[in-house]
Amino acid sequence: MSLLFSNCVDEKMGDNTFGKKFKITSFGESHGKVVGVVIDGIPAGLKFDLNYIQSELNKRKPGQSNFTTTRKEHDKVEVLSGIFNEMTTGSPICLIIWNKDVDSTKYEQSKNLLRPSHVDYVIREKFGDFADYRGSGRFSGRITAGFVMAGAVAKQILNKLNVSILAYTKSIGAVEDFNDYPVEDLKALNEQKKKSQIGALDLDVSTKMETEIENAKADNDSVGGTICCIVTNIPPGIGGPIFNSLESNISKGIFSIPAVKGIEFGAGFKASRMKGSEHNDPWTIENGRIRTTKNDSGGIIGGISTGMPIIFTIAVKPTSSIGKTQKTVNIKTMKVEDIKIEGRHDPCIVPRISVVVESIAAIVILDHLLIEGRIPSVLEY
Amino acid sequence: MSLLFSNCVDEKMGDNTFGKKFKITSFGESHGKVVGVVIDGIPAGLKFDLNYIQSELNKRKPGQSNFTTTRKEHDKVEVLSGIFNEMTTGSPICLIIWNKDVDSTKYEQSKNLLRPSHVDYVIREKFGDFADYRGSGRFSGRITAGFVMAGAVAKQILNKLNVSILAYTKSIGAVEDFNDYPVEDLKALNEQKKKSQIGALDLDVSTKMETEIENAKADNDSVGGTICCIVTNIPPGIGGPIFNSLESNISKGIFSIPAVKGIEFGAGFKASRMKGSEHNDPWTIENGRIRTTKNDSGGIIGGISTGMPIIFTIAVKPTSSIGKTQKTVNIKTMKVEDIKIEGRHDPCIVPRISVVVESIAAIVILDHLLIEGRIPSVLEY
Amino acid sequence: MSLLFSNCVDEKMGDNTFGKKFKITSFGESHGKVVGVVIDGIPAGLKFDLNYIQSELNKRKPGQSNFTTTRKEHDKVEVLSGIFNEMTTGSPICLIIWNKDVDSTKYEQSKNLLRPSHVDYVIREKFGDFADYRGSGRFSGRITAGFVMAGAVAKQILNKLNVSILAYTKSIGAVEDFNDYPVEDLKALNEQKKKSQIGALDLDVSTKMETEIENAKADNDSVGGTICCIVTNIPPGIGGPIFNSLESNISKGIFSIPAVKGIEFGAGFKASRMKGSEHNDPWTIENGRIRTTKNDSGGIIGGISTGMPIIFTIAVKPTSSIGKTQKTVNIKTMKVEDIKIEGRHDPCIVPRISVVVESIAAIVILDHLLIEGRIPSVLEY
Amino acid sequence: MSLLFSNCVDEKMGDNTFGKKFKITSFGESHGKVVGVVIDGIPAGLKFDLNYIQSELNKRKPGQSNFTTTRKEHDKVEVLSGIFNEMTTGSPICLIIWNKDVDSTKYEQSKNLLRPSHVDYVIREKFGDFADYRGSGRFSGRITAGFVMAGAVAKQILNKLNVSILAYTKSIGAVEDFNDYPVEDLKALNEQKKKSQIGALDLDVSTKMETEIENAKADNDSVGGTICCIVTNIPPGIGGPIFNSLESNISKGIFSIPAVKGIEFGAGFKASRMKGSEHNDPWTIENGRIRTTKNDSGGIIGGISTGMPIIFTIAVKPTSSIGKTQKTVNIKTMKVEDIKIEGRHDPCIVPRISVVVESIAAIVILDHLLIEGRIPSVLEY
Repeated sequence: MSLLFSNCVDEKMGDNTFGKKFKITSFGESHGKVVGVVIDGIPAGLKFDLNYIQSELNKRKPGQSNFTTTRKEHDKVEVLSGIFNEMTTGSPICLIIWNKDVDSTKYEQSKNLLRPSHVDYVIREKFGDFADYRGSGRFSGRITAGFVMAGAVAKQILNKLNVSILAYTKSIGAVEDFNDYPVEDLKALNEQKKKSQIGALDLDVSTKMETEIENAKADNDSVGGTICCIVTNIPPGIGGPIFNSLESNISKGIFSIPAVKGIEFGAGFKASRMKGSEHNDPWTIENGRIRTTKNDSGGIIGGISTGMPIIFTIAVKPTSSIGKTQKTVNIKTMKVEDIKIEGRHDPCIVPRISVVVESIAAIVILDHLLIEGRIPSVLEY
Repeated sequence: MSLLFSNCVDEKMGDNTFGKKFKITSFGESHGKVVGVVIDGIPAGLKFDLNYIQSELNKRKPGQSNFTTTRKEHDKVEVLSGIFNEMTTGSPICLIIWNKDVDSTKYEQSKNLLRPSHVDYVIREKFGDFADYRGSGRFSGRITAGFVMAGAVAKQILNKLNVSILAYTKSIGAVEDFNDYPVEDLKALNEQKKKSQIGALDLDVSTKMETEIENAKADNDSVGGTICCIVTNIPPGIGGPIFNSLESNISKGIFSIPAVKGIEFGAGFKASRMKGSEHNDPWTIENGRIRTTKNDSGGIIGGISTGMPIIFTIAVKPTSSIGKTQKTVNIKTMKVEDIKIEGRHDPCIVPRISVVVESIAAIVILDHLLIEGRIPSVLEY
Repeated sequence: MSLLFSNCVDEKMGDNTFGKKFKITSFGESHGKVVGVVIDGIPAGLKFDLNYIQSELNKRKPGQSNFTTTRKEHDKVEVLSGIFNEMTTGSPICLIIWNKDVDSTKYEQSKNLLRPSHVDYVIREKFGDFADYRGSGRFSGRITAGFVMAGAVAKQILNKLNVSILAYTKSIGAVEDFNDYPVEDLKALNEQKKKSQIGALDLDVSTKMETEIENAKADNDSVGGTICCIVTNIPPGIGGPIFNSLESNISKGIFSIPAVKGIEFGAGFKASRMKGSEHNDPWTIENGRIRTTKNDSGGIIGGISTGMPIIFTIAVKPTSSIGKTQKTVNIKTMKVEDIKIEGRHDPCIVPRISVVVESIAAIVILDHLLIEGRIPSVLEY
Repeated sequence: MSLLFSNCVDEKMGDNTFGKKFKITSFGESHGKVVGVVIDGIPAGLKFDLNYIQSELNKRKPGQSNFTTTRKEHDKVEVLSGIFNEMTTGSPICLIIWNKDVDSTKYEQSKNLLRPSHVDYVIREKFGDFADYRGSGRFSGRITAGFVMAGAVAKQILNKLNVSILAYTKSIGAVEDFNDYPVEDLKALNEQKKKSQIGALDLDVSTKMETEIENAKADNDSVGGTICCIVTNIPPGIGGPIFNSLESNISKGIFSIPAVKGIEFGAGFKASRMKGSEHNDPWTIENGRIRTTKNDSGGIIGGISTGMPIIFTIAVKPTSSIGKTQKTVNIKTMKVEDIKIEGRHDPCIVPRISVVVESIAAIVILDHLLIEGRIPSVLEY
């Protein structure tokens, strides 16, 4: 006998908490009062650098260049709990930013037209009429500001351990940066990245990428891209087999970022076309340490760090909100109609996602280090 | 002041439990007594079909064709708990297979040579001398037999709901199947797949893929590939934003499979090179139901199912154990030496991973359906 | 060989999240900016009654009678997220109250004297100098305001299902209420309770209890008591064996309330002195429903609800902050000295804990109902 | 508008996994093939003492004295995974015992009569006809053999740290042991306990307790009791506020043991009748260490260990299966009838629960020590 799906729709958001020991709980909506995060599991006795968190937040702040939405937000971080005398106390840290430049009129106008590849339909199926649809509510990229605040806290600890993280724009549309960077010195690369308005490393390629974005924008269209993320100075032995794999946990976090549609570690999809003799990374000895002569494994074997840089690349789809006319369904009339989306949108979301990717990497790696007992007690210092 | 990593190595495996409501706990080693799984969260009152579980297990059993290892295992499933009168009782189900054809001599011989892209080094860093290294112990692909047993239980419920799952070999090395299959009828495709020894759908392409594997094998080498997985008849509204995204949870599970190095949903990495106007899936109406005219989103938008088939592709690296001579480090002498790996290995692991991918998909999706209240009470029937 | 404890002190607070599907995350400190809670897992489409939450909060608000601390707080709840058009959206709800009447001077003065049975010593052992010690920081009873806000949200749903919860003061010091109340009509009992300033049901006993508190207060001392909590209209079949036992989960929540030192279900400790023939609750039939003729099991057998009222009693220790002179250690001089604690303290915390106990009961039971699929979809209505 | 409970009964057992870092997953049934446990999170490099586990199991084995059921089981532990060369590997350890002396005939005979205070009714409400009712299936005390095996693994580590755990019979029915034992030397007390057949410490009191049990047995009745558990040598600073409280986690584990109806820490319910000046434990200095002059807090303040012995007492109800005639409902005829339970039952379950209580204490405390980073790396030794 066959069953029917239960018609008890689950109209809840599921779990907004991520991590085992360094746990973050996300809350807030795009056009609600705030976007916030509770960070649980941060050790006591850490100098808390609010400016650093603000500087990280600024990297994804909207309205900063030609290449982003015109929404203007100060995105000034406010601490609600967990800090005392500018130090962490071991208590949960609640951080928020207030939403200010909210213009929800555009969303009202076309409430019945399902924007293609947007969440209107699935939200309706899941939450009925009750979701806060303004600015995509809980599905907005703005929610990732919470990831960035938590990531900036994680990075403060990782920085002290000389762990470096860099995500850069590897491709925009058809324009790709094929350079092979000396990943051991991420500081220099980070300086280089600042010169590009879109988070690229090679300024010539950056110019071509910018043109790609401008063209899309001029055409009322959008464009996708890829981001490469590198983490250095992770000791060997972090992670574990099966469900505790670094790849499992990083990918789980990365797909929490809206618009991500793919991830690969090291050679990734290219590895699928290689022979073992090409792909295998031979072990060698460098200054007395065991290393590999190349890094097609992306720093992770069997779910565990090898001590080589961790490298992964993600695929970001083109922004689904475009001004171009598209076909869609009017769910009131249940007829197919034209839709032309107004409102303020990023023609390419890649540059602003860069810091979010770094934040997720920082959160996952710190969580592993904490649960695996590799963070020394701050109290000892 | 900068910190040093704590020298307290965490010599534990981390978490061997996966899922929220349909939870699986994995145990066992490649050359230990058993490989097993405890499945928790299965409803009472379900006819338990042991033969079906066995038939699923047989799909990944070694020693079945020219293209796999010569290790011979019966892999006969045994039920230790949770079943009464051939029905599920609501209690945890413990399933095991016994290891029989165990030959650990090969592993002893080269204990000091770190096999390239293999876990020898990271295991040593994590567990010291204490890991069960025989047959890669806990890191062996054989551990996935537990995923298959759990997946077969999940599939029994999904089958009753007419949810279909199919994973097929999309590419081996440079040979790729570019066909666009009518994914709505997976039963026919499943029949087609049975005709190929390596889990491909197009027999002509299959022959070329087989040659690719044979060539690698003849050359003492190995080769990678990709697997495409399709899930049909999932209603819209399953999943959620950020950490509850279907993409997050599927990818977390998929990277638990040894040798996987990438995953993409729908157009995936191709989406990163597209314009929004190309990538967006226009909504339309088909027989009164809301559908999209194409499916570059892979059936998931905003982490939530759209009602279209869920489609993802994974990248599998070439088997790291190869007979070809490679350079590596002898950790006893700390010198670089040649290594030539003996033992029984799969020249290409892709065909045997197919059913594991389906199993993970089944486990994740059933977990979502259970926690979201979409599985009707079996007691009602 | 014997080991030594690692000197890596874990200076983190542990896990501030509670629940499986209805999850609450607590944050804030007694003398910090706010006390708050994030509530995750609340269904969409529920009319959100802010006044109800406020009225619940008011029940534990300080400064309301002779029997509580003189700290005056408005404890006005503010919604930061999750509500739209006065309805729940399915998103996490963040609720806060601001701390206003903060007087931390008293805590500075005796920083080096370990208050007896207070957290000064254990905080120092766990967090070194970094904890926010003001007003006991994160260990303050004020943190339970977050439980009350979350509990009030849970109660709104339970109320719609006619589930009633009542906690009342059963004893203060030696004065105990031995009455056997007709627990099936909790509404009437709730009205009765309002007449007592200290949450008792029998006004004569209440007067004696008040005297007990007044005497303790006059003597610069404090006094403990017990609270009985009753939950009615829970259907049979909720809960589960071992780790999913209703008793396990309720007790885990209840011991999260500062000052609780014991819990018993039904006859509890009295049951340990009974014969099976006395304690067993005979099954019978009432109006066609299966019931028991008495309820020494407290509505729970084998961890599962029987359909009878759930009844448990908790032991609350006397407030540890007392004005009486006590002996203690000065951790600066490492000498034993006298201590006389100043500041504003409750001579008896029992009356204010009542609503917290109800809140925990509501949270645990709603979590069970949600995860067991017993809450009907609000969308259907 | 009021709602109705969903009629979707959740016919699953809930969560059979307990712990955060030291996780145990329980499986098996009383009259099925096995009772087992998977232990996850055990460090690598620990000498695994199978005899010790067996000796712990023997303490709860049935059929050993006049005071227990006549069911005879060898309860011989078998290792399915996780051990290599008699050492732990860091992998999950699966341990089982086989069920042999199974006599299910008695259960068939009275299938329609709901045994008073037994799980027949709630099982039926939760699982319909599908539960394995034989020997109470999953609700049997026999399931706790899994807790004992896991506890014995935990104790092996705790023993190395000189942590001692002792649970003893404090009362049987009306007979109570009022002695105040010198809890600092648990080894001597453990030797003393071995002299009593029922786990008591004072042999005179033990004799009276035995008479209490014999009388109940002779009368076809049963009797309850209390167990006191002491844990010594826990350093101060373990645990945390609210949900991470040692009291929360111990009580959650303890109520997983069938027949437990109450728990209290330190003075417990007695504390509720005390003044603050009586109950508060004054801090003092002993041999340079900070201690308290008495221990009414039971070694835990604010959810955190004080360094004093952890002491708690639990209430165990009388065995519900008694031979005496009782009234109950026949669910087939829906009439009230007499029931006289046959089969093999313990007239008092207290003596056999002792080791289970110790096991739960060991599991919870080791979990805290592991997650708080207080267990030194075994690899260092």
